[in-house]
Amino acid sequence: MGSSTQNGVVDKGVDFANYFCTYGFLYHQKEMLCDRVRMDAYYNSIFKNKHHFEGKVVLDVGTGSGILAIWSAQAGARKVYAVEATKMAEHAAELVKSNELQHVVEVIEGTMEDITLPEKVDVIISEWMGYFLLRESMLDSVLCARDRWLKPNGVMYPSHARMWLAPIKSTLVDQKMNDFEGSMDDWYCFIDDTKNYYGVDMSALTKPFTHEQKKYYLQTSIWNNLHPNQVIGTPVIIKEIDCLTTTVDDISNVRASVSSSITEENARLAGIAGWFDVHFRGSSENPAQNEIELNTGPNEDSGTHWGQQVFLLHPPPRVQRGDDLKFNFSMIRSKENHRLMEVDLDIEIKQSSGKLLPQVRNKFFIE
Amino acid sequence: MGSSTQNGVVDKGVDFANYFCTYGFLYHQKEMLCDRVRMDAYYNSIFKNKHHFEGKVVLDVGTGSGILAIWSAQAGARKVYAVEATKMAEHAAELVKSNELQHVVEVIEGTMEDITLPEKVDVIISEWMGYFLLRESMLDSVLCARDRWLKPNGVMYPSHARMWLAPIKSTLVDQKMNDFEGSMDDWYCFIDDTKNYYGVDMSALTKPFTHEQKKYYLQTSIWNNLHPNQVIGTPVIIKEIDCLTTTVDDISNVRASVSSSITEENARLAGIAGWFDVHFRGSSENPAQNEIELNTGPNEDSGTHWGQQVFLLHPPPRVQRGDDLKFNFSMIRSKENHRLMEVDLDIEIKQSSGKLLPQVRNKFFIE
Ligand SMILES: Nc1ncnc2c1ncn2[C@@H]1O[C@H](CSCC[C@H](N)C(=O)O)[C@@H](O)[C@H]1O
Ligand SMILES: Nc1ncnc2c1ncn2[C@@H]1O[C@H](CSCC[C@H](N)C(=O)O)[C@@H](O)[C@H]1O
Repeated sequence: MGSSTQNGVVDKGVDFANYFCTYGFLYHQKEMLCDRVRMDAYYNSIFKNKHHFEGKVVLDVGTGSGILAIWSAQAGARKVYAVEATKMAEHAAELVKSNELQHVVEVIEGTMEDITLPEKVDVIISEWMGYFLLRESMLDSVLCARDRWLKPNGVMYPSHARMWLAPIKSTLVDQKMNDFEGSMDDWYCFIDDTKNYYGVDMSALTKPFTHEQKKYYLQTSIWNNLHPNQVIGTPVIIKEIDCLTTTVDDISNVRASVSSSITEENARLAGIAGWFDVHFRGSSENPAQNEIELNTGPNEDSGTHWGQQVFLLHPPPRVQRGDDLKFNFSMIRSKENHRLMEVDLDIEIKQSSGKLLPQVRNKFFIE
Repeated sequence: MGSSTQNGVVDKGVDFANYFCTYGFLYHQKEMLCDRVRMDAYYNSIFKNKHHFEGKVVLDVGTGSGILAIWSAQAGARKVYAVEATKMAEHAAELVKSNELQHVVEVIEGTMEDITLPEKVDVIISEWMGYFLLRESMLDSVLCARDRWLKPNGVMYPSHARMWLAPIKSTLVDQKMNDFEGSMDDWYCFIDDTKNYYGVDMSALTKPFTHEQKKYYLQTSIWNNLHPNQVIGTPVIIKEIDCLTTTVDDISNVRASVSSSITEENARLAGIAGWFDVHFRGSSENPAQNEIELNTGPNEDSGTHWGQQVFLLHPPPRVQRGDDLKFNFSMIRSKENHRLMEVDLDIEIKQSSGKLLPQVRNKFFIE
């Protein structure tokens, strides 16, 4: 119960309650529409590659407010199918009309998996990326659309995606360790009070409570917009995705063994940050005229609403320039909710002196 | 979609995703266990009325951590059935065991509606109250248990409940009106930017966005622990419930026409506050030896985790001592989620001079 998948089949009502509901609010759509890095990337990807749109049939998977569909039409598309699961579809239709594009853009309310298009399409455009790229598992819906509706030489917007990891320094780890300890101090008072005032011994729950709070404060990845100088070692790629060929299997289980070297003189390894970039390159048969990148890594001038996901190490080990970190990374979907993720991250530190510190195993949740 | 009821039938998966999920956290159970007003009331209701428990069979509907079941056993119950829908049942069972009551308390994991007991019971105890009494609609489950399992002369704990309204003064209304205006100012900048930078006119969405934000900031009732001196008129009862005889129909639709007089010299009527009390009186055949009250109204010394629900009036009218307020109150369940409420509250002010101000109709959401 409380599970969105039963034998791998997603319960639709539960998926709406857990996931789609937030996208029904204009407030939430506006947050995405105010992300200038995101907006510029999609805008440029379309208007600097008009040859991909002029006279073409476009499918926008998850059109939300309709923005990508409208741009596609403005760039000269002959027809745009704009599919949206939530009631936001009605607002998208209004917007299409008030921008006088109703002869080009057809808004369809429904989930991509359920609806039928009258024809195949030349371009699939979608903004499907969640935190650390794959949270939300919305790429599944885009791949489903691709396999059913994309013409043989069709193009994907974006065409490629990559996931990154990098060692960081941060005081977040101290905050969260403090919060955790504060919560445990509270708990022990509570145990005493409940015994003294109400005659019930609650100490049998100390272990599961500790577990619950540790998960909450220390094992759940944290949204953060990092400053580039918080990155203390070389960023490494842990996954590359070609949106034209990847499969749900390929993205359901991400594994990588990679190494990063510490570049900072002397620092505390407070955690590992994860982020992504995507590229708009078209395909080899049908390349972009101007390649566009959308990068959500640490950036001094401009953050994105995705920020980075931080996986805290507690207590944080000290590291020095030249130390080598070996990551064994694995990410799978949560059994209770296929749109959330569970990460195993084993870290081995080989000091520049040659000394090997014992491997530390970490378990994290992307909630 | 996103609805927990389909033709009045509750989708269980959705109900777990929307409602039960939070009760699966010890952190949340602890918040209730730390509410001293709540704990004292239940504790006293049991231990000052041991005659209702000694040698009796008790059913605890929604046992959570198991606290009420354990107290019932400690007060001398022969058998306690402790029913809990979430995984919290496992922790309750641990707690029962570590308090050495496993021969009396039987924890059953399941929803009250689905499970079967081996016998009828003398007492049904439950802490089913949500914000403003009826939010969460959990009383339904208690009534279902009563109709199936309570012996003819059985007792309900609590036995009675009442809902209250009172006019209040508060600066919350200024805060929320400010927040709303700030959000709208932001929106107009966003409209300009999106037109200028990205060539899309979003102004068709201004109306639905205003509607959405107004609902969020001004029409959603607000949790607050009021000071008694914020109450500026006579509190009035809008609903009395006898837990032994009430029905789901009776509580699904609460209607009242009541009057309150302003007691404050001169004030701004910032809103109407709603709260509840419950009583432990037993039944007429089987009365309590010591009546206990749990009151969640404004209190100088001790708040409860329920606080009060505030329904804001914007802009707040000025009122004076002796003015009469006539409330036409109606509360129904939300069509999308039967555990949330929609309130219509029409207010007429008859000034002490005799002048009648035009009736103001207000719509609120208890989310
Ligand atoms: N399987 C599916 N079918 C239809 N819509 C989907 C979907 N999965 C996600 N969505 C929708 O996809 C949107 C992703 S957010 C992106 C919105 C818009 N394209 C923009 O770039 O601003 C949400 O509105 C969500 O409701
Ligand atoms: N229909 C139902 N069947 C079983 N449990 C239910 C239920 N409806 C609500 N509950 C449970 O009832 C509890 C209400 S909170 C009260 C917990 C506990 N009795 C205490 O007083 O501290 C929650 O744990 C919730 O999961």
